[in-house]
Amino acid sequence: MIDCRSDTVTRPDQTMREAAFAAEVGDDVYEEDPTVAELESRAADLVGKDAALFVPTGTMGNQVAAFVHTEPGQEVLTDRQSHVVKYELGGLAQHAGVQVRMLDADPRGVPAPEQVAAGYVEEDLHRPGTGLLCLENTHNARGGLAIEADAIAAAAQAAHERGVPVHLDGARVFNAATALDVPVTDLTDPVDSVMFCLSKGLGAPIGSILAGDEAFIERARRARKLFGGGMRQVGVVAGPGLAALDNVDELATDHDLAADLASGLDEIPGLDVEPPETNIVLVDVSETGLDVESFTDRLREHGVLVSPFGPTTVRVTAHRDLEPADVDAVVERVGSALG
Amino acid sequence: MIDCRSDTVTRPDQTMREAAFAAEVGDDVYEEDPTVAELESRAADLVGKDAALFVPTGTMGNQVAAFVHTEPGQEVLTDRQSHVVKYELGGLAQHAGVQVRMLDADPRGVPAPEQVAAGYVEEDLHRPGTGLLCLENTHNARGGLAIEADAIAAAAQAAHERGVPVHLDGARVFNAATALDVPVTDLTDPVDSVMFCLSKGLGAPIGSILAGDEAFIERARRARKLFGGGMRQVGVVAGPGLAALDNVDELATDHDLAADLASGLDEIPGLDVEPPETNIVLVDVSETGLDVESFTDRLREHGVLVSPFGPTTVRVTAHRDLEPADVDAVVERVGSALG
Amino acid sequence: MIDCRSDTVTRPDQTMREAAFAAEVGDDVYEEDPTVAELESRAADLVGKDAALFVPTGTMGNQVAAFVHTEPGQEVLTDRQSHVVKYELGGLAQHAGVQVRMLDADPRGVPAPEQVAAGYVEEDLHRPGTGLLCLENTHNARGGLAIEADAIAAAAQAAHERGVPVHLDGARVFNAATALDVPVTDLTDPVDSVMFCLSKGLGAPIGSILAGDEAFIERARRARKLFGGGMRQVGVVAGPGLAALDNVDELATDHDLAADLASGLDEIPGLDVEPPETNIVLVDVSETGLDVESFTDRLREHGVLVSPFGPTTVRVTAHRDLEPADVDAVVERVGSALG
Amino acid sequence: MIDCRSDTVTRPDQTMREAAFAAEVGDDVYEEDPTVAELESRAADLVGKDAALFVPTGTMGNQVAAFVHTEPGQEVLTDRQSHVVKYELGGLAQHAGVQVRMLDADPRGVPAPEQVAAGYVEEDLHRPGTGLLCLENTHNARGGLAIEADAIAAAAQAAHERGVPVHLDGARVFNAATALDVPVTDLTDPVDSVMFCLSKGLGAPIGSILAGDEAFIERARRARKLFGGGMRQVGVVAGPGLAALDNVDELATDHDLAADLASGLDEIPGLDVEPPETNIVLVDVSETGLDVESFTDRLREHGVLVSPFGPTTVRVTAHRDLEPADVDAVVERVGSALG
Repeated sequence: MIDCRSDTVTRPDQTMREAAFAAEVGDDVYEEDPTVAELESRAADLVGKDAALFVPTGTMGNQVAAFVHTEPGQEVLTDRQSHVVKYELGGLAQHAGVQVRMLDADPRGVPAPEQVAAGYVEEDLHRPGTGLLCLENTHNARGGLAIEADAIAAAAQAAHERGVPVHLDGARVFNAATALDVPVTDLTDPVDSVMFCLSKGLGAPIGSILAGDEAFIERARRARKLFGGGMRQVGVVAGPGLAALDNVDELATDHDLAADLASGLDEIPGLDVEPPETNIVLVDVSETGLDVESFTDRLREHGVLVSPFGPTTVRVTAHRDLEPADVDAVVERVGSALG
Repeated sequence: MIDCRSDTVTRPDQTMREAAFAAEVGDDVYEEDPTVAELESRAADLVGKDAALFVPTGTMGNQVAAFVHTEPGQEVLTDRQSHVVKYELGGLAQHAGVQVRMLDADPRGVPAPEQVAAGYVEEDLHRPGTGLLCLENTHNARGGLAIEADAIAAAAQAAHERGVPVHLDGARVFNAATALDVPVTDLTDPVDSVMFCLSKGLGAPIGSILAGDEAFIERARRARKLFGGGMRQVGVVAGPGLAALDNVDELATDHDLAADLASGLDEIPGLDVEPPETNIVLVDVSETGLDVESFTDRLREHGVLVSPFGPTTVRVTAHRDLEPADVDAVVERVGSALG
Repeated sequence: MIDCRSDTVTRPDQTMREAAFAAEVGDDVYEEDPTVAELESRAADLVGKDAALFVPTGTMGNQVAAFVHTEPGQEVLTDRQSHVVKYELGGLAQHAGVQVRMLDADPRGVPAPEQVAAGYVEEDLHRPGTGLLCLENTHNARGGLAIEADAIAAAAQAAHERGVPVHLDGARVFNAATALDVPVTDLTDPVDSVMFCLSKGLGAPIGSILAGDEAFIERARRARKLFGGGMRQVGVVAGPGLAALDNVDELATDHDLAADLASGLDEIPGLDVEPPETNIVLVDVSETGLDVESFTDRLREHGVLVSPFGPTTVRVTAHRDLEPADVDAVVERVGSALG
Repeated sequence: MIDCRSDTVTRPDQTMREAAFAAEVGDDVYEEDPTVAELESRAADLVGKDAALFVPTGTMGNQVAAFVHTEPGQEVLTDRQSHVVKYELGGLAQHAGVQVRMLDADPRGVPAPEQVAAGYVEEDLHRPGTGLLCLENTHNARGGLAIEADAIAAAAQAAHERGVPVHLDGARVFNAATALDVPVTDLTDPVDSVMFCLSKGLGAPIGSILAGDEAFIERARRARKLFGGGMRQVGVVAGPGLAALDNVDELATDHDLAADLASGLDEIPGLDVEPPETNIVLVDVSETGLDVESFTDRLREHGVLVSPFGPTTVRVTAHRDLEPADVDAVVERVGSALG
């Protein structure tokens, strides 16, 4: 079975397992785990922020960020297709008591400054004021789009001019930097806080990083405890997380695999595939005569796992656990499945 | 000063004041106020529901309805321009812990069945499920549009087919029925609960009605207490509320006044006005060279109050405290103000 | 039927009905109702605060106060028997997201400074910090106790020394001032905000007042809208509310009636009654051989309404709708009921 | 430095590190991690429940349990000294919108059936109904008390008779079973759900278990995602967690160490120490003339870490990373520190 559902399926490699085995640890609730300290310090530097916090999941990182940035009764401005509104169980309302203002941030999921201006709400007697702009890069639901630094900066500036802080859901922000061939700080400098995942393309088994200024991270640390994310000898996963940071340069390989997957699949009759920008390939199956569930089931029977992703779309994701030969096999098996 | 900001400015007339004076009362928390009982019974009948509850405001009616219909972590599907998301301080997130899925329910603010289908989310491990469809009639922010029974029914059916209850923010639903010349039950039969205001065009000083089935109203009564809406000798305002129900037939007069306002204002150079469907007139001021705030201020100086309503739009509202002569005066004063 | 369940059953008198009839009104959401303005101004002066806000219920006043004073994740320190925890549907958690730290503030329901000190929690990584001390005067559930100014001041000082604001649920604070024969400001000066009810012993049909400093009331006004308490031509109830303020001096009569009720009832075999401090009489029925529900039912059959109030206690409340003859009748009927 | 602050400081041993290194893993959000599956199955069996869920922390386990068992506006009945109210940042209000009814469940922290009966609130128009009874065993804040099965069963029965579910915060429930020399199921059979920690005395670096019936765990799995606890290749910590389950039999050693610590410390002039029931030793320092902070600082200077725990109390905790020689050293160093 070749698993292309997500880069979350990547398994820790030998280096990571050794890092887990050998990690120097301490009680991280007391902030005494040296491996965590090293990871947080190195991660903060990487994305150009003063401080960072290890969190067990990207969802917790995003939700804690929104909880800290906002107060109940405000609004969060974000793309309709963003992860925080589609895949985090409505947490923004549940945890932070904030209303989501969903934008159609066409065509690439980051609002133009005019959209930020139009979506901004000034608090008055009747209206919740805008408390946060939330961006996403790469933009998962729109196909792993690598959002250019200019677009991030322009949206962030439009928010900042109105006194609104900006959080970046950068679960795959290193994929974006790789695809755009820019330092990741070009993508993170314009925002106030950023979350990125160690556990997706970078291959760590567990964990994400939330970064921002000192005061923000201090409040986030307390909120993490409230959410139940204050763990103990975290070095056993922070060690693999440190190893994951060494994998940033290998993301380009995933993008090459994705490009090969896309071109191979696009040649199969009935499939329509756009060239991917990063490691995520969206495949339109509407011409196959199969609905998405049937298509997914058919592929599973032929040894390929993909993710249903929209009414006529499946997602095929490249990641570090795939070999070039797997790409060929996927294309061949999909061809057989539809043949 | 002629006040066209809203029909909420209507003052109780002699009949209502006498009703307040003479109301038989009791403690409504104990459900012993006979005037409230009569009002709730008559109101429920009017909109074709089993039961009704007096609430101090339309906002409380809508928020209590959402609180009762949903559970935390669900989504509410509604038009981006609806009152519940624009003017209720983000209460859906704050009170009910639900995420709003804002639709662009173009062109008239009620989603087509296809939009309901597309906006519906089935609960899964990642996604908040849709817990409520919220409609609005007349649609305030879109210009007092009187939404046809077919549109309400089609949207409601699309929701019901997916197990989703439907609430109607019918703050001005009698205006809609009047404009469409249909029984109001044609507009309320398709929905599970409806809120309408006694205090807008109907002229009562205070209060709104929330109606639905017995079980819903029983839960709403408890939620009303939680929200701080369990008042005591409510007859003093329910009496005027009963008198307000007698004013339904007079809403047509407001619509005539609004039509006259619209045609008069449209002839003033620089103003662009569409014929209104009910009592709300939206005036585009972009050709006056004034921004909305300046335009509003200018009119105030000339003795006319209107509401800023959008980047280039003001709202002029007809209501029972306006005389035909007031309409002429408004047109004349606005003309002078811009001349 | 003589109704001694609560002073909330008091009905508006002729003066109040005339005030409702004649009230000058405006749209209070726009802050244009002159009667409301007069009421809020006079009420603020009465309790010695800078500003005041009319709210439809005491529950909304208390809940809005807690919402404004605290932030989610803090604690509210209050007596276990206080109204905000017993009778407001858990609103402190639901609305404000705050944890209640229930004190046994024996014997009179206001914590001693040592209890405030012991109950105070300093925010740290694990602990919610104390965000509010909530007092109550008169203390309803403990039998309408009139809490002395010294006790209020001492508790408030203990809170203030720790940076904790203090709210007074003064639903019946004028009863306390009357019983203690002190200016009500002796009881309200030590606290940051106070709520008192127009609708209980003072006899208004609807409404309460929340008072505090300007900044607090500005935030409370917005929170009131969020809770659905932003009503329109509120003068029709603010007028009776103003008349209610003229009834403060008559509360002594209620206390006399309560004293007579208590001494009369205490003489009935099986009943044990302490002399009341204000208008609330607690009657221990354990020696009657009847449980509270049966006792209450038996009295109803004999034309007297009282409130079940505890495992062996009923509450008998004196109020302005009772005549001295009613007191005699109550005692006689209860005697017959138990005879 | 000898660290007796908490058993949370225990570090993974060689077996656990090897388990982390060698763990077979998969994506646990897809429920495909075989090591997690084995851990959850074995853990459920251990505590006699149908199903179990790995959670990153005990706090998340408790909070998720309360979120699933209750609905907003209910009450949770629990001891005033319980972890869920003292050390979880007010999460019950913040996450679940429930009010805590704090009992003084003297003398051992588990309410007697009469206290459950007295604390139970039946939902009515004014009152939040009781939605959950939360017990704790061992009881941390009261000194690691091992609560007898009969007490758990009696409290649970009193709750169940009233339709109230029961959750056990069993962070250290295996310590209780060890001390009482009973099967742990004697302590968990009476409750509907139980959380226990792998990361305290059992020595795992990360993680806790929440167990209950199938329907409960299915809802808890979704809530875990909402809280940000849905991690990926969890086997790397579930492997050590499985190893931790093998350490249950060694807890008796911790209790012996604690007993030795207690008797040694009690002999030091100025210290008052009760014999411990499990691994937690509470030391009263009031006769030393030092406040708790100064006492703790003094010990740190002498190479011993303990936890401030109350106005005159510090907590000294025995755990698997202490040797018998460490106990002697602690006693000696404390003696020197105070000498």
